[in-house]
Amino acid sequence: MSQPPSYERLEQRFARIAHLDNALGILQWDQDTMMPDGAASARSESLATLKVMRHELLTDEALQDLLPAAELEAQPDVWRSANVREMRRQYMHATAVPADLVEATSKAVSESEMAWRKARRDDDFASLIPYLAEVLRLQRAVGEAKAVALGTSTYDALLDSYEPDGRSERIDAVFGDLAKFLPAFTEAVLEAQARRPEVLPITGPFSVEAQRGLGMKMMKALGFDFERGRLDVSLHPFCGGSDDDVRITTRYDEADFARSLMGVLHETGHALYEQGRPLAWKKQPIGQSRGMALHESQSLLIEMQACRSPQFLTYAAPLMREAFGGSGPAWEADNLARLYTRVQKSLIRVDADEVTYPAHVILRYRLERAMIDDELQLKDLPGAFREGMKKLIGIEPPNDALGCMQDIHWPAGLWGYFPTYTLGAMTAAQLFDAAKKQIPELLDGIATGDFAPLVAWLRTNVHGKGSLLSTDELLIEVTGRPLDAEVFKGHLRARYLEGR
Amino acid sequence: MSQPPSYERLEQRFARIAHLDNALGILQWDQDTMMPDGAASARSESLATLKVMRHELLTDEALQDLLPAAELEAQPDVWRSANVREMRRQYMHATAVPADLVEATSKAVSESEMAWRKARRDDDFASLIPYLAEVLRLQRAVGEAKAVALGTSTYDALLDSYEPDGRSERIDAVFGDLAKFLPAFTEAVLEAQARRPEVLPITGPFSVEAQRGLGMKMMKALGFDFERGRLDVSLHPFCGGSDDDVRITTRYDEADFARSLMGVLHETGHALYEQGRPLAWKKQPIGQSRGMALHESQSLLIEMQACRSPQFLTYAAPLMREAFGGSGPAWEADNLARLYTRVQKSLIRVDADEVTYPAHVILRYRLERAMIDDELQLKDLPGAFREGMKKLIGIEPPNDALGCMQDIHWPAGLWGYFPTYTLGAMTAAQLFDAAKKQIPELLDGIATGDFAPLVAWLRTNVHGKGSLLSTDELLIEVTGRPLDAEVFKGHLRARYLEGR
Repeated sequence: MSQPPSYERLEQRFARIAHLDNALGILQWDQDTMMPDGAASARSESLATLKVMRHELLTDEALQDLLPAAELEAQPDVWRSANVREMRRQYMHATAVPADLVEATSKAVSESEMAWRKARRDDDFASLIPYLAEVLRLQRAVGEAKAVALGTSTYDALLDSYEPDGRSERIDAVFGDLAKFLPAFTEAVLEAQARRPEVLPITGPFSVEAQRGLGMKMMKALGFDFERGRLDVSLHPFCGGSDDDVRITTRYDEADFARSLMGVLHETGHALYEQGRPLAWKKQPIGQSRGMALHESQSLLIEMQACRSPQFLTYAAPLMREAFGGSGPAWEADNLARLYTRVQKSLIRVDADEVTYPAHVILRYRLERAMIDDELQLKDLPGAFREGMKKLIGIEPPNDALGCMQDIHWPAGLWGYFPTYTLGAMTAAQLFDAAKKQIPELLDGIATGDFAPLVAWLRTNVHGKGSLLSTDELLIEVTGRPLDAEVFKGHLRARYLEGR
Repeated sequence: MSQPPSYERLEQRFARIAHLDNALGILQWDQDTMMPDGAASARSESLATLKVMRHELLTDEALQDLLPAAELEAQPDVWRSANVREMRRQYMHATAVPADLVEATSKAVSESEMAWRKARRDDDFASLIPYLAEVLRLQRAVGEAKAVALGTSTYDALLDSYEPDGRSERIDAVFGDLAKFLPAFTEAVLEAQARRPEVLPITGPFSVEAQRGLGMKMMKALGFDFERGRLDVSLHPFCGGSDDDVRITTRYDEADFARSLMGVLHETGHALYEQGRPLAWKKQPIGQSRGMALHESQSLLIEMQACRSPQFLTYAAPLMREAFGGSGPAWEADNLARLYTRVQKSLIRVDADEVTYPAHVILRYRLERAMIDDELQLKDLPGAFREGMKKLIGIEPPNDALGCMQDIHWPAGLWGYFPTYTLGAMTAAQLFDAAKKQIPELLDGIATGDFAPLVAWLRTNVHGKGSLLSTDELLIEVTGRPLDAEVFKGHLRARYLEGR
């Protein structure tokens, strides 16, 4: 028999898909950083063609027979077996949705994104309703199609695209816990904050060059490999690129360096995950990062857990002074720590602090689930959003532009994505807590700019696992238990009430 | 019948190929400008995968039936018919060579390029021979395979990849004419040059920022569309990118701004051709640029014909003074014109001036043809190269590194490419001569920085034609005759003996 075994044939096919993904990653990066405006339409066509070719490779009916055969061949090897499992997951997601539904979604999303830009500008939610209704209808259809294949609810089938094996039953439990905790806790934090010394502002201008230099210095300290990655500028920061070429972006504001710097640290967390994926499996499904919650946990572990800690600011304050010529009490570590952990009730999710952010997410999660389940009508969304903000955060948006229309996710057809932000924040706290316990010198190291023990720990326990384990399995293996809101609450209490 | 006609099906297929080409163009640009070193191998794999997919689309056996059917459907429409003709040309080139020969060539080229880098560094031609012999053997096999399909000689079949319908019989005639003319002419130029006022040097440093600013100003003056293109930095300058996103590169030397500037003008000539291709046919074979000779003619028309003219330097001198804070007689237009049209016998082709450059090319053309035809053995190449240099240029390389190993073309498997450089120079002279005759105010316009009449003329007569006509047909239509060495010789006489 000259035909190579099924497993090898699948590996070759998925390597080819990885080559396409790497091409797509760079082309998308280029679109957001380098491409001149006039190329937008040709670039969309190129991206669409590559995506269609990728889809064709992934949905080829040959896989129907190859997958079960490969499953047998791969045993008892753990990684190979898990690789076939992940191949099957990708195949299932790709084949579950009929082509005309994919096409209709793509068209509806593109129209509703356009309508959303206008509706948000004009604060005119009514004008968005017909477009959003079409996206919702199609998202529901996608969810229903996948739900059959997955044996889940419609919403969970959507969630599964972003968070493999994620289930709303589990999310309800942890989010319910948090939702009960946050309102009173936020008030307590605001009171404690009011009793502390006033935060001294630091003022610019901060040159782009100095900001870029400081950002790169910290990226290097964190172990970002510039031989396999870049730092550039884009309107919306992201981490993209390809397997061996992880590219993060930021945006500089000469009046405020912290926003860009914290963004760089956040994206560096994502990038470390990508750069730390298991080398030998890089081009196979098993070598990919596990779900969005774990990805977000890696960015938040670096940005929030490590790099807003008092220890980090002990290390960073002199570097900041040096980079921008700052001096005086405003530039001392304790003032900077207070500045970068300031809490306030605010309307906009992306600008929210660590304490109030989860409330924004929990609200959106509950609303989108209700909409998918047909328990909330679009016409009632603005009211439900205002109501939720009042209850969970204690303020009310003055209009829908600053309310239920602030995010692109729903018009963009990303239903099921929102909960991963806060699952990520909680996972970050739980992983960092375990790391601190397992590496007693962790925080002292960070105070001197030594991130090597932390990053080595993440490489071993998270990055190097690829998609071998589910997020919960990984958490149990590394921290001894599944996702637990208590650890996150403990972190918030320690940082925002006890100042450590 | 629900199946769309054959012509439409082919158009769709070639549009898909164009989308891949656009992706490849950006990925290759990125490789040379942005990519970190560590991504080299993954990028090669991505590029190879896309090229294989492109090849599969182009060699699909469905084309065997679609092409003749489409030929009938396309008549009597001139553009559609020509489009099918060009589809067939691409199909023929892609299918003529068996897959194992393509693969062997790719492997041999990669090994011989590596061997060449080392051999050139060590001035050790003997070490290169086995690698180069393999590339030569395979190039000959490729040529023989294509020769059957094309009904040409082996060498002409290779040439046809770069210069469609180019034939060595015609090249022999024009190159023979030039080869007789150049040695004595070069001596005459050197004597005339010696009688002229001494050229005053202009010295730097010239900041990269100022160089970039001046380059972009001139690109804009020439009509480069920055909404559909970019200027960046790479080790070796090139014009690349995609249909709607034409990207040129340069390299800056703070000690010498002219080299980069003239390079930018050269690449702008290529870019104007790409940006000026017929919009409606951009993604079809007929909408592509016609051959390398015409492409090179567009870069040389801008760089050599237009932008080393006394009129151009009248316009450019004040801008150069302004950009670099220059003053005094060295910065006057007449001195700059003498500086940028200086002739000297030199060893390196890429550094050669307009007068001696063709001799470098003629030598290489004759040698590569003799090698393909098995009339020159590789072991005799160094001697034949030295001999040719002495005869055509009047100097002899002191070693092979500065002799027959200076160019990458042969190790890179680009046999048949060299003649297009000088065909381009001659074509440029003939086109510019016609433009001057048809637009009496052309040179006066250039002296004030007004390139619009020239570029409009090129758009109409060259760029907008795509691949509708062969290079010779286009020359006859625009200048009244096929390629004629007399016009180029007349240009050289006027510029280098009469100083106009």
